[in-house]
Amino acid sequence: TKLWGGRFEDSVSDAVERFTESISFDKTLYKHDIMGSRAHAEMLQHQGLISEEDRDAILKGLDEIQKQIESGEFIWRVDREDVHMNIEAALTDLVGEPAKKLHTARSRNDQVCTDLRLWSRDAIDSIVSHIKHLQVALVKLALENESLIVPGYTHLQRAQPVLLPHLLLAYVEQLERDAGRLLDCRSRLNFSPLGACALAGTGLPIDRFMTSNALGFTAPLRNSIDAVSDRDFVMEFLSANAILASHLSRLGEEWVLWASEEFGFIIPSDRVSTGSSIMPQKKNPDPMELVRGKSARVIGDLVTLLVLCKGLPQAYNRDLQEDKEPLFDSVKTITGMLEVSADFADNIKFNKERIREALPAGHLDATTLADYLGMAFRTSHDVVGKCVAMCLSRNSCLEEIKLEDLKNISPIFEEDVYEFMGVENAIKNFSSYGSTGSQCVSLQLQHWVRNLHLDVV
Amino acid sequence: TKLWGGRFEDSVSDAVERFTESISFDKTLYKHDIMGSRAHAEMLQHQGLISEEDRDAILKGLDEIQKQIESGEFIWRVDREDVHMNIEAALTDLVGEPAKKLHTARSRNDQVCTDLRLWSRDAIDSIVSHIKHLQVALVKLALENESLIVPGYTHLQRAQPVLLPHLLLAYVEQLERDAGRLLDCRSRLNFSPLGACALAGTGLPIDRFMTSNALGFTAPLRNSIDAVSDRDFVMEFLSANAILASHLSRLGEEWVLWASEEFGFIIPSDRVSTGSSIMPQKKNPDPMELVRGKSARVIGDLVTLLVLCKGLPQAYNRDLQEDKEPLFDSVKTITGMLEVSADFADNIKFNKERIREALPAGHLDATTLADYLGMAFRTSHDVVGKCVAMCLSRNSCLEEIKLEDLKNISPIFEEDVYEFMGVENAIKNFSSYGSTGSQCVSLQLQHWVRNLHLDVV
Amino acid sequence: TKLWGGRFEDSVSDAVERFTESISFDKTLYKHDIMGSRAHAEMLQHQGLISEEDRDAILKGLDEIQKQIESGEFIWRVDREDVHMNIEAALTDLVGEPAKKLHTARSRNDQVCTDLRLWSRDAIDSIVSHIKHLQVALVKLALENESLIVPGYTHLQRAQPVLLPHLLLAYVEQLERDAGRLLDCRSRLNFSPLGACALAGTGLPIDRFMTSNALGFTAPLRNSIDAVSDRDFVMEFLSANAILASHLSRLGEEWVLWASEEFGFIIPSDRVSTGSSIMPQKKNPDPMELVRGKSARVIGDLVTLLVLCKGLPQAYNRDLQEDKEPLFDSVKTITGMLEVSADFADNIKFNKERIREALPAGHLDATTLADYLGMAFRTSHDVVGKCVAMCLSRNSCLEEIKLEDLKNISPIFEEDVYEFMGVENAIKNFSSYGSTGSQCVSLQLQHWVRNLHLDVV
Amino acid sequence: TKLWGGRFEDSVSDAVERFTESISFDKTLYKHDIMGSRAHAEMLQHQGLISEEDRDAILKGLDEIQKQIESGEFIWRVDREDVHMNIEAALTDLVGEPAKKLHTARSRNDQVCTDLRLWSRDAIDSIVSHIKHLQVALVKLALENESLIVPGYTHLQRAQPVLLPHLLLAYVEQLERDAGRLLDCRSRLNFSPLGACALAGTGLPIDRFMTSNALGFTAPLRNSIDAVSDRDFVMEFLSANAILASHLSRLGEEWVLWASEEFGFIIPSDRVSTGSSIMPQKKNPDPMELVRGKSARVIGDLVTLLVLCKGLPQAYNRDLQEDKEPLFDSVKTITGMLEVSADFADNIKFNKERIREALPAGHLDATTLADYLGMAFRTSHDVVGKCVAMCLSRNSCLEEIKLEDLKNISPIFEEDVYEFMGVENAIKNFSSYGSTGSQCVSLQLQHWVRNLHLDVV
Repeated sequence: TKLWGGRFEDSVSDAVERFTESISFDKTLYKHDIMGSRAHAEMLQHQGLISEEDRDAILKGLDEIQKQIESGEFIWRVDREDVHMNIEAALTDLVGEPAKKLHTARSRNDQVCTDLRLWSRDAIDSIVSHIKHLQVALVKLALENESLIVPGYTHLQRAQPVLLPHLLLAYVEQLERDAGRLLDCRSRLNFSPLGACALAGTGLPIDRFMTSNALGFTAPLRNSIDAVSDRDFVMEFLSANAILASHLSRLGEEWVLWASEEFGFIIPSDRVSTGSSIMPQKKNPDPMELVRGKSARVIGDLVTLLVLCKGLPQAYNRDLQEDKEPLFDSVKTITGMLEVSADFADNIKFNKERIREALPAGHLDATTLADYLGMAFRTSHDVVGKCVAMCLSRNSCLEEIKLEDLKNISPIFEEDVYEFMGVENAIKNFSSYGSTGSQCVSLQLQHWVRNLHLDVV
Repeated sequence: TKLWGGRFEDSVSDAVERFTESISFDKTLYKHDIMGSRAHAEMLQHQGLISEEDRDAILKGLDEIQKQIESGEFIWRVDREDVHMNIEAALTDLVGEPAKKLHTARSRNDQVCTDLRLWSRDAIDSIVSHIKHLQVALVKLALENESLIVPGYTHLQRAQPVLLPHLLLAYVEQLERDAGRLLDCRSRLNFSPLGACALAGTGLPIDRFMTSNALGFTAPLRNSIDAVSDRDFVMEFLSANAILASHLSRLGEEWVLWASEEFGFIIPSDRVSTGSSIMPQKKNPDPMELVRGKSARVIGDLVTLLVLCKGLPQAYNRDLQEDKEPLFDSVKTITGMLEVSADFADNIKFNKERIREALPAGHLDATTLADYLGMAFRTSHDVVGKCVAMCLSRNSCLEEIKLEDLKNISPIFEEDVYEFMGVENAIKNFSSYGSTGSQCVSLQLQHWVRNLHLDVV
Repeated sequence: TKLWGGRFEDSVSDAVERFTESISFDKTLYKHDIMGSRAHAEMLQHQGLISEEDRDAILKGLDEIQKQIESGEFIWRVDREDVHMNIEAALTDLVGEPAKKLHTARSRNDQVCTDLRLWSRDAIDSIVSHIKHLQVALVKLALENESLIVPGYTHLQRAQPVLLPHLLLAYVEQLERDAGRLLDCRSRLNFSPLGACALAGTGLPIDRFMTSNALGFTAPLRNSIDAVSDRDFVMEFLSANAILASHLSRLGEEWVLWASEEFGFIIPSDRVSTGSSIMPQKKNPDPMELVRGKSARVIGDLVTLLVLCKGLPQAYNRDLQEDKEPLFDSVKTITGMLEVSADFADNIKFNKERIREALPAGHLDATTLADYLGMAFRTSHDVVGKCVAMCLSRNSCLEEIKLEDLKNISPIFEEDVYEFMGVENAIKNFSSYGSTGSQCVSLQLQHWVRNLHLDVV
Repeated sequence: TKLWGGRFEDSVSDAVERFTESISFDKTLYKHDIMGSRAHAEMLQHQGLISEEDRDAILKGLDEIQKQIESGEFIWRVDREDVHMNIEAALTDLVGEPAKKLHTARSRNDQVCTDLRLWSRDAIDSIVSHIKHLQVALVKLALENESLIVPGYTHLQRAQPVLLPHLLLAYVEQLERDAGRLLDCRSRLNFSPLGACALAGTGLPIDRFMTSNALGFTAPLRNSIDAVSDRDFVMEFLSANAILASHLSRLGEEWVLWASEEFGFIIPSDRVSTGSSIMPQKKNPDPMELVRGKSARVIGDLVTLLVLCKGLPQAYNRDLQEDKEPLFDSVKTITGMLEVSADFADNIKFNKERIREALPAGHLDATTLADYLGMAFRTSHDVVGKCVAMCLSRNSCLEEIKLEDLKNISPIFEEDVYEFMGVENAIKNFSSYGSTGSQCVSLQLQHWVRNLHLDVV
């Protein structure tokens, strides 16, 4: 029979029991649930609400239960609904009467929020650490290919030459902001709901600051209704994951493109490729396709949360039970995406020869040439437009146009124009802060080597 | 080693294996995968591509594997990636050489689409049948309360009196359209991709019409590239589920409201209520809260699919592996929602006394009164507005205003006005098709009793 | 003052008026609103609820108002809230007393649903016609390039050769299902809410079948509460648009890829390209990027609708006013996407030379070779895998391997193997229904030429 | 002809021009575009890239254009595509040659990002200020009703009594975190992309720190590719808005409920209510329904952004043009929601009498009674459950049970139990930090009065 069964005469139907149970997924929270119960028991004793013996019995029992769970012996029971009731009931089975006092001045409403915040805090720390690993993998790849020039694209059309490290570090920047978002979320969620009870607090002389401290929270939440009813921290966490997933989906797309026959810029090793059950020649960059694809579920998880909370009245509603699966799924998915992206980065080679051969196509140096002209920009844009048209009609590169022909287009061209042509020269000419000039990129690299502590390795 | 390992020298990393596996969820498809393989083997033999002995070995092996799976003996292996490879490899372990011929003129690309369409077809049939059950439950509730008048709301403000069956049948109508959407989807998806192979078809003399017929498909899909690359049938299915979920979320909201102390219109039995771990007096309509809440994940699942497919080039991309979990989750969730809603409908009582007492509030008869006036509608609206204002100032009902006072507002009022006042009279006066007039609602009820075959029960 | 102002003493605040107005967007419905009012007035007269003179005055007034609107003279007033009140109030200004009778047995609740269904019906017809145009453009492109072989991709890796028409017709198939979804939606929504009034119907002797017929609806909706409160038809419409948008986003992605320097398969004309404000050599396939990008808002519009309706109690709630802008935006966006896609199709050339040169790369014939071997498929997959490995080490094509070397890998190879190598031979060998074999594709083309009536042009 | 027309021979088709234009919406950015151009021109001159005369001509021209725009004289031209080209071309019309130099070392790619960040910064400041207004309105409402006890709900079932200010301050807390999220977003986006040019930076001697400072940015973005290609700041902004919208949707739901006949807790004034076109007695809380409903589009806007950016390769793609309308719509919508919520808060009265009468129902004091028992909580929960059951059977309140009967249930009950019964006593007994005890709530109120500077008013 349920722990809340007092006034009930009939038990719930099977369909309802199956539909409303959460133990199949919220057992994920067991460690944080026990952590919260320990802090609560210590506080109850300290405040004289339970005896030392009761506390000790509870703590010992919780230890035992945690061991059972971690060794796989613990039996989760659907008829005990959720992780909280499973552990509490098991504790009662184990230590008897003292266990019944553990729920003093506590409700499942504040308990589950406490668990969820503790779990999220750990999850954020873990994701941030995975972000760092991916950043390190990208910076290493950049260091290994420090002077490799690749086409830079806009509209997937060749635009200007860029140094490969410049491109890779763009992702490192984005990941850094992603980590920042997660850490801001962590700061904002790290407050304790414990002691908010059902919604209104309690008349018992509890000390919410004591449990808050014990659990590493910044402080107790100031308003007990807010404490049990809001899930903005889950929404914020899933938003941060969704934005991160969006960044990774773009990395996925780019590497899938670069691994194609047509681009041919990267060669993934066998360790990160898969084959085809029918086409023997295939070698597919599946992990990055899945990184791209799995971004969809991280976004879907966020939408679930937002739809879930829309239009709910205060305070706790059972709908909120549905916050957990999207949260768990989002964290698991994003973790895999980060892990596999780093793995992929560790297992690709850039096909330098192929890249070098490909560079002349697309007139990547056209903008540098426009800079050379130094006249009103709109005019120089026109002049270079004509040079490019000449190239197209002759199927040649800009640097292959004779000075004479150039002068026919504009008298400003002089012999030194050839120092502005060709991708090597183009790269050499970049000098603005954050640009793709060798020195500028080198400064960026140094920044990240220091920031990620790659120098001390 | 992988079945596609031919040209590969190294095996995939653990992280990649874990990240790319699908066996943990696509084993759900085992029955339909085996069904497809059986049809394929029969056809291969009929077309002379494999011998009768090979076919028999394959069919017998598949039988055996299905038995193993259903008895729980089958061992699913992550290193065998997915349901297709697990079954094929197990078949090879079991019957040897013939098994290697089963994948002739087939690819996992067309195989998985075949499985998915077969599975979806069954899932739709099951959901439609659950819809019928809920409709039946609602119609029964309507029959049991055929003459119960309740307030009808707009803006959650009392608007006009309606018969309870009228309100319940509004949901029945919506569910009928939901079923229609699902059946349209079923018709559209019931085409066979089998034989599309990787994307281009095959040069082997297969007969796609034979497998299509054997599997109960309408016809083979006309274009093999389309066959393997599109997932519009999943998107359509999940859209239909999302719209259905939206309807159920509204039913959930309404019944949660009606079960509140403030409304007090329904009394859910203990079989569909749960209690509180802290507040002993609570009896919560959790199942309907969760019906409302779980609509969020059905919507989230749809979003996942839409995001997933956005911007993918032709033909198959590994991203598409991610179509399954949202599909399975959506079907499981919507099924539970339907089941529990029907269960709830079977377990509520309408608090007729409370409802009757509540009816006078809110001037539900005001519009009927306006109809009475029969003058230009905008003018009668004004007149009744003044009557209502009089009631508000006196804290009375419309029917309590004396004729004299009414006449002061408009000379048109006569003694017969009182036949248009009070909710009973209001209901009596409704007569338009589809309206809440007793006879009109009775016709609706008869329609549904026939349509749902409740008359033959 | 508002038409509903009867019992109100104070007018709404400016912020509220601005926030709640809908005239800035729902005026889009003016034509269908007037159409509905005409049918309503005819019916009111036919049923003896208004006089012939009143009806004539109303009809004439409505004519005049429609003319004013279409000539741009009509003044839309925010203080008159919405399209219904603007037109009704203008009618009153114009024809006086009779106008006040028009709203007899009608509410804005059923009126707006009527308008919205009529508008949606027209919008669907228009979108379906745009779909046909795009199909025609694609089929023409296919006819112009009937024998062009291009690489077929899976995982964006070269898989097998396909005929270009085969690939283009895959989109035609998808568009056909998109049209089917829209037409199913059209059938389902084409029922009349008119006469449902606020939610409960009316006691006045109206004839809902008469207005339903006059407006081209299949029948009146059976349940008045359902009629005014559900927006499933908008959700279904936006779902169909979202799936269609998903298809177009894939076409967009593919053509952006194909227009890149690296693929170089298509050359868009200047009429569908744009340049860069800084890089003079750029020629960007912007329209198809925007087709891909705008799919996002079509999906966003659907999400808005689903979130909007989640958890609303019956019957009408003001929230539902928010159904219009997403609907209008979705229709406008998808229309543009279809139009521009067709325009793009009309303005690209396939770079046949470049494509031909590119074909040998990627061993597109490997699967055909496996078919040749005719042994157990898993074994032939292995054998061809070894051939491909040999090619990779020698940087050669399969057809360049000597028979002797082939025989070393498997003794089954004979001289006739060379009839299975090279993309032309590969294409020649495809024969299954729906495959990329020339004859199979030709049959498909004929089907679409007939179906789209291109033969009669 | 387009400013980028150099190598183009043909102009774009009408459909493409219509489809790709952005001037209809990005003109919103005019002020920030001009602000950016001013800073850019100053820098170009300071670095010797243009003359003082050129700069002065540019600045004067920009002033003139801003004036024209703000007075409504400026003619926006669709053939000039976007806000940047419209202003630059108008500048050229106005001041001639110098205008052509303004685009030196700049691209629309970095220009639009600069505009968008500046605009977003202002928008955030404005939203945060609207948040404060709403907080102030809620705190004032709390102060006016400092001792009003209302039912607290979980599962929309009556749970425990709470002080109204306690409930209102829960929203104030949530809004505070919303403001925090927006300000974190502001800090993260306040970096300058200007000078990143198309994607690679430039070889001209620009000073990005100078423009960054002039525009109030923290610093220039470190990586030019990142600068032009990422829209994470828009996603983060729209996420923050979506979470804020979720909070407001809950406030909307709650006040719609409370304004219903059944709850009857609040009476909105005529200034924030609207009537019905058919039901003369209706007075609807439309503004809060729309606050609830409009949350849907704020969520839809976020989804649009997330879908938009999914799977785009680096760097700029035209898809990104679609970031603006969702951003503008989200900001406009959330601003209206905040404004109207504050307006509503200023225009409601709590129906104290009705609330007082309603308080005895629902056994709100049951949990306080359980606390009184002071025995093992699970046991006291059982005991009180029995007391509630007794009340239900007798249709009485807890405080109406005689001591004798109480003692029959548990001998622990003594005379002092009546000090724990009734909502007033229940409130009096709460004492934990953040609870609904009078003193605890008073502390909260003081905190917010100080924090929102209401004390100095």
